[in-house]
Amino acid sequence: MLMLQRVSKARVAGPVGALLRWSSTVRLTAESYPQVKRLDFGQITPQTVDFFKSVVGESAVVTDQDDLLFYNEDQMRKYRGQSSLCVKPKTTQQVSEIVKYCHEHKLALVPQGGNTGLVGGSVPVFDEIVLSLSGMNKIRSFDHTSGILKADAGLILENADNFLAENGYIFPLDLGAKGSCHIGGNVAANAGGLRLLRYGSLHGSVLGLEVVLPDGTIYDSMNALRKDNTGYDLKQLFIGSEGTLGVITGVSILCPARPKAVNIAFLGLESYEAVQNTFKRARSELCEVLSAFEFMDRQSQWQAKRFLKTSHPLAQDDPDVDVPEYPFYVLIETSGSCKEHDDAKLETFLESIMEDGTVADGVVSQDESQLKTLWTWREGISEASNMDGGVYKYDVSLPLPVMYDLIEVLRARLDEHGLRSISDASKPVVDVVGYGHIGDGNVHVNVIVREYNKTVEKCLEPYVYQWISDHHGSISAEHGLGFQKKNYIGYSKSEVEIALMKDIKSKFDPQGIMNPYKYL
Amino acid sequence: MLMLQRVSKARVAGPVGALLRWSSTVRLTAESYPQVKRLDFGQITPQTVDFFKSVVGESAVVTDQDDLLFYNEDQMRKYRGQSSLCVKPKTTQQVSEIVKYCHEHKLALVPQGGNTGLVGGSVPVFDEIVLSLSGMNKIRSFDHTSGILKADAGLILENADNFLAENGYIFPLDLGAKGSCHIGGNVAANAGGLRLLRYGSLHGSVLGLEVVLPDGTIYDSMNALRKDNTGYDLKQLFIGSEGTLGVITGVSILCPARPKAVNIAFLGLESYEAVQNTFKRARSELCEVLSAFEFMDRQSQWQAKRFLKTSHPLAQDDPDVDVPEYPFYVLIETSGSCKEHDDAKLETFLESIMEDGTVADGVVSQDESQLKTLWTWREGISEASNMDGGVYKYDVSLPLPVMYDLIEVLRARLDEHGLRSISDASKPVVDVVGYGHIGDGNVHVNVIVREYNKTVEKCLEPYVYQWISDHHGSISAEHGLGFQKKNYIGYSKSEVEIALMKDIKSKFDPQGIMNPYKYL
Repeated sequence: MLMLQRVSKARVAGPVGALLRWSSTVRLTAESYPQVKRLDFGQITPQTVDFFKSVVGESAVVTDQDDLLFYNEDQMRKYRGQSSLCVKPKTTQQVSEIVKYCHEHKLALVPQGGNTGLVGGSVPVFDEIVLSLSGMNKIRSFDHTSGILKADAGLILENADNFLAENGYIFPLDLGAKGSCHIGGNVAANAGGLRLLRYGSLHGSVLGLEVVLPDGTIYDSMNALRKDNTGYDLKQLFIGSEGTLGVITGVSILCPARPKAVNIAFLGLESYEAVQNTFKRARSELCEVLSAFEFMDRQSQWQAKRFLKTSHPLAQDDPDVDVPEYPFYVLIETSGSCKEHDDAKLETFLESIMEDGTVADGVVSQDESQLKTLWTWREGISEASNMDGGVYKYDVSLPLPVMYDLIEVLRARLDEHGLRSISDASKPVVDVVGYGHIGDGNVHVNVIVREYNKTVEKCLEPYVYQWISDHHGSISAEHGLGFQKKNYIGYSKSEVEIALMKDIKSKFDPQGIMNPYKYL
Repeated sequence: MLMLQRVSKARVAGPVGALLRWSSTVRLTAESYPQVKRLDFGQITPQTVDFFKSVVGESAVVTDQDDLLFYNEDQMRKYRGQSSLCVKPKTTQQVSEIVKYCHEHKLALVPQGGNTGLVGGSVPVFDEIVLSLSGMNKIRSFDHTSGILKADAGLILENADNFLAENGYIFPLDLGAKGSCHIGGNVAANAGGLRLLRYGSLHGSVLGLEVVLPDGTIYDSMNALRKDNTGYDLKQLFIGSEGTLGVITGVSILCPARPKAVNIAFLGLESYEAVQNTFKRARSELCEVLSAFEFMDRQSQWQAKRFLKTSHPLAQDDPDVDVPEYPFYVLIETSGSCKEHDDAKLETFLESIMEDGTVADGVVSQDESQLKTLWTWREGISEASNMDGGVYKYDVSLPLPVMYDLIEVLRARLDEHGLRSISDASKPVVDVVGYGHIGDGNVHVNVIVREYNKTVEKCLEPYVYQWISDHHGSISAEHGLGFQKKNYIGYSKSEVEIALMKDIKSKFDPQGIMNPYKYL
């Protein structure tokens, strides 16, 4: 009952499908990782709670244990903290007063957006205070000529995009978690998502930030200028800093004109080489209208089919027996200002790649509803991967030629250790599925498990990180480091880089109160 | 003779038109700004020269005073340093050894690319050693699938773009100085240029950098990953740091597919309001094919006509008497993958804005040669502004509605002080012209003078910076701070921001040897 109540209260905007499968209590992070010890921070006292209430009002301070569960537990249900205090300020000034108090009393803090992170970065490990931005959700201004949006950090991504849609603009980022995640959290995590191929990274589109620094100082660079070469571009440090350098309270972002026409092609391919060739040609031939190029392997489509329980787009004859038949699938999206032109470009492109045999089969969306359906076969994989009990997720950047090798290597390794079987429920691993933003050099590797299991984890890690490092990849393309990958940064960054990062962290936050036990 | 020799040797790739007008010797910066004092750095000794020769070879060390002139004097001919030593390493390892030596002997350094900067940032002030990257000009690798180019910092921008053109790609940056400037210098200056509207800023497209830090350590993040969320994105600090945090030696950058079709429309408009409306509609209606939106005022076209000595595109009947007749002009460029589609989009757009009277007159390029000619009326303004003796350049970001007010305010102010006349040669100022990247919120204000003049300078500064600050703009949109604007950063950045920047500078470069007397 507790779980359901909590879910309906707090997760209402989240992916509902996953909720009903939540039944067990998540293990405390401190128990799962006993080697991690609480650092010498101050303790929350009744005076702390009183002070917070005096700043933000009684109703914006959460101390009830049931109510705190949402803020303590991560979306993946892998991590659970033990915070006894969550505060939900409504203004930047309030955030500043809260942080200043924490600074003076050496109290550790976890800034939290929509709590949709995938690496345990947005929940406490021990008794850190949760500073939720959910009370700061206003649009501050929108310039109709330049397309510059200024908003509170706690604005939900989908709400931002809906507002922009009404004004003929689009948010330059889209994510599966858009119904829950906050734009401030997106910036803190440097989220990549589905529109990066077209609109680039947040390092390019974020124009300014408002951040409360670890001593309570308000850093305000909320300008609305596309260009400003006066000094080091400090806001860049906060993009992707996962709450370790301060609390992002405001975002100024450049939004592109919203395309008027969107098309989707969903293709089946016989080899990974064909996937790469198709990408290269799409980039050249679809050029300015190409807005997404996603790939999915057969196993991911098989898993998605178990979850979605409908016919696969490329095998629609018999919903009961169809199985995805191609080893690889690709979803290509075009977005442009003239449907007729986009249709013509896509048609010419598809004719050419099907004629020469690069692509074996394909369908094209005919309307908005088909377009959404086709996207579910890509977007649904994440939830589908979680339906058997748990999932070890690796979010990897790799040079394209070796990208898919990683999935095959992991399957072979799990088989060697006798850990994988789709049908044998005594094996901990169901399967390894691969999919992702090939246009960004980013593959998601989901190891679907029947339960979280130390043997599986040890078989995978640090092996997977070493493999990625050996192949010049990144161990975290877009999910970040958080708690999960804190100790593995050395597989992606050199000692020189890590030393500089630590210098910056200690300069900004000498007491280490901002989101401790994570990142570095 | 000296000047001509130097010009023909070193400026061969630069804008030739300007060279012949160079005749006087530029005043030493130390004499023009006697309040700036040499800091307590070490002195170059014969041992320094010997050591440098042992590292880079005899021919890569410049000590001849005539030969040094190119490295000491800036392109604007406003600043001249007194360096007696320039070194041109060929490898990152050599740069590291040179910098390490300077670090150990507390010798000040100026990293120099193509020396095309506009704020005196790339030349010495006193006797700083010039570290020229001109010897490091190789392409390291190019990935044909992802479009990722890795190259030495000293690669000339035009050479990079020509190489990419052969491979169907485009460098995401274009500049008037492309024939001389280096891609490393572009990154160090965070150059904006003509393609920013379409391809975004270098903060988005630079994927990795190799930098020699002020103690000689090699910082290597030359990865080829589009996404990498493992720690603070430190490379961002170097983008726009103007050589104050280290020497950029390598650049990894994401290059878009090269558009196959390019169109230009050159339009005459009756008001600045019409310019804004045209921009807003171009952004929405030309959407994904819009690649440049530049505006020029009448005065800039009048000046360009004096310089180019040909008919203006919108007054072609009589080359002897035509004068630009509209108060404002706009150049719109489209780039796409299908000429037929782009033509149709541009035609529909132009019909609509001419029909309703937003635009008064216009021409469209019919071929490559016309396209280039039309661009000269925008690109030629910079050189044209320098033809009367000198130019005070302000490179400003401002909110669009007030952008053009600045030019009118400056004209009025110079008139009040009796300083401006087009015809009266006894007045120091010829005129103030305004033009720029309106799509980026960036206007260039050129105060054309018959000679550099302290009365004019005092009439303009800090007045112009205060006006920009009062209107929430940036005093340097893309040119940077350099020597010229070092003392004015406070008009664009808060004390909190400046303090953080100084912390970072002193962390990276505690001795302050990298490009001193500038930036902060």
